[in-house]
Amino acid sequence: LPLFTLALAQAGEFGFVLLSFAVQHGDMPEDTAERLLLVVALSMLLTPLLFIAYDKLLAPRASRDGLKREADVIAEENPIIILGHGRVGQLVDNLLLSCGYHTTVIDYDVETVEGLSRFGVKSYFGDASQPALLEAAGIAKAKLLIIAIDQREQAVAITEHVRRAHPNLPIIARAYDRIHVYELYNAGASAIIRETFDAAIRTGRTALEVLGMDAEKAQEISEFYYHRDRHATQQMAEAYDPNLPRFGN
Amino acid sequence: LPLFTLALAQAGEFGFVLLSFAVQHGDMPEDTAERLLLVVALSMLLTPLLFIAYDKLLAPRASRDGLKREADVIAEENPIIILGHGRVGQLVDNLLLSCGYHTTVIDYDVETVEGLSRFGVKSYFGDASQPALLEAAGIAKAKLLIIAIDQREQAVAITEHVRRAHPNLPIIARAYDRIHVYELYNAGASAIIRETFDAAIRTGRTALEVLGMDAEKAQEISEFYYHRDRHATQQMAEAYDPNLPRFGN
Repeated sequence: LPLFTLALAQAGEFGFVLLSFAVQHGDMPEDTAERLLLVVALSMLLTPLLFIAYDKLLAPRASRDGLKREADVIAEENPIIILGHGRVGQLVDNLLLSCGYHTTVIDYDVETVEGLSRFGVKSYFGDASQPALLEAAGIAKAKLLIIAIDQREQAVAITEHVRRAHPNLPIIARAYDRIHVYELYNAGASAIIRETFDAAIRTGRTALEVLGMDAEKAQEISEFYYHRDRHATQQMAEAYDPNLPRFGN
Repeated sequence: LPLFTLALAQAGEFGFVLLSFAVQHGDMPEDTAERLLLVVALSMLLTPLLFIAYDKLLAPRASRDGLKREADVIAEENPIIILGHGRVGQLVDNLLLSCGYHTTVIDYDVETVEGLSRFGVKSYFGDASQPALLEAAGIAKAKLLIIAIDQREQAVAITEHVRRAHPNLPIIARAYDRIHVYELYNAGASAIIRETFDAAIRTGRTALEVLGMDAEKAQEISEFYYHRDRHATQQMAEAYDPNLPRFGN
């Protein structure tokens, strides 16, 4: 897979930080670090050129093969499986790759899969609610499943299925709102992150600063708010009754 | 407005924190704080009872009056105007009220406005893309506008209009994704917060911890990642060309 090979060069600029961490914490002598910095810098220079070459020379040949596509065949098994390559999945994938982890990403939107592949970001096209696809991706041996799709019911169904088949696999799930948290919690997700919750808190914090509050105090208050709301949501998740209407819980 | 009066009691539990902050920083003698704590605790006990009483006694009488509603008449002028009372607007409003600020919230979804009003959370029904509504809400004297609606084009149009009419008003805007950031930036928003960006970073950070990374290091990395991406996005916003396609920018 040439694209995947190219993508390995991609996280280059992140290397600067890891190296400076290592030097700061005394894990690495400075001259070794300097040599590595040079390698990182060169790889960053070369990566875009490699991508251009790939686009001009290799990609056209590959895409001639099939226009209407069935689910991709997943030929690799990585310890992290990410479902959904949208706004959340893309960033999570990039962050984990930057830290040296290996991921397999599955998305059901052809345009996203093909558009991102032109940037060397690899994902597989397929419907993650099909258990067979997850098994093919090596979920039996995986260390972590991240469900980052934006379809509420599917996220719950996948969580339920995977939890039943793999009781010890950690599952991090993206939730639409509070009610969705309760559903994912009952389905067996290990960690649940509301997709707009942190942004809302950051908005509040920014507002406090605009209104003249000291930045440190605004941060303290928004962090407290985060923990309070999270605690309350967890307690609610345990007590949630799915048979009551929207404003009944 | 009896509901609004009731809502004043609501932020009670937040009082605990403010009080403990005050004592910690030596702003308040401990015995005064203890007496205030008792008041806060009592008010928290009483608030739900007051709401129940409101629901049973006052609300049915009020809602008999009109079922099909036109845009509400906004009779108050508050220094903060929040557009959108969904997942983001609700939380921002609650956080700001908790800190003692006064807000006017406008939403175009009747179910949301009425559902939340049953919990004593006041908002006005209306279409915020109508300049007249914003003027009636006192935007000329406001200190801050927060656009927390989930309609991309409307958010850009409102930002453009308000920026033209009130060049010095701070505008905090909720963005759908990176492209939307560029559009809001060009429209004149003062601060822009991507609605799933922070959640994606938190997901990555949680993943790093699940995979065995030290919590402090995971936080350091995700904070670095946040600043790097934000910086890149700001640079892109300045260079953005709206005439190029999705993957062309």
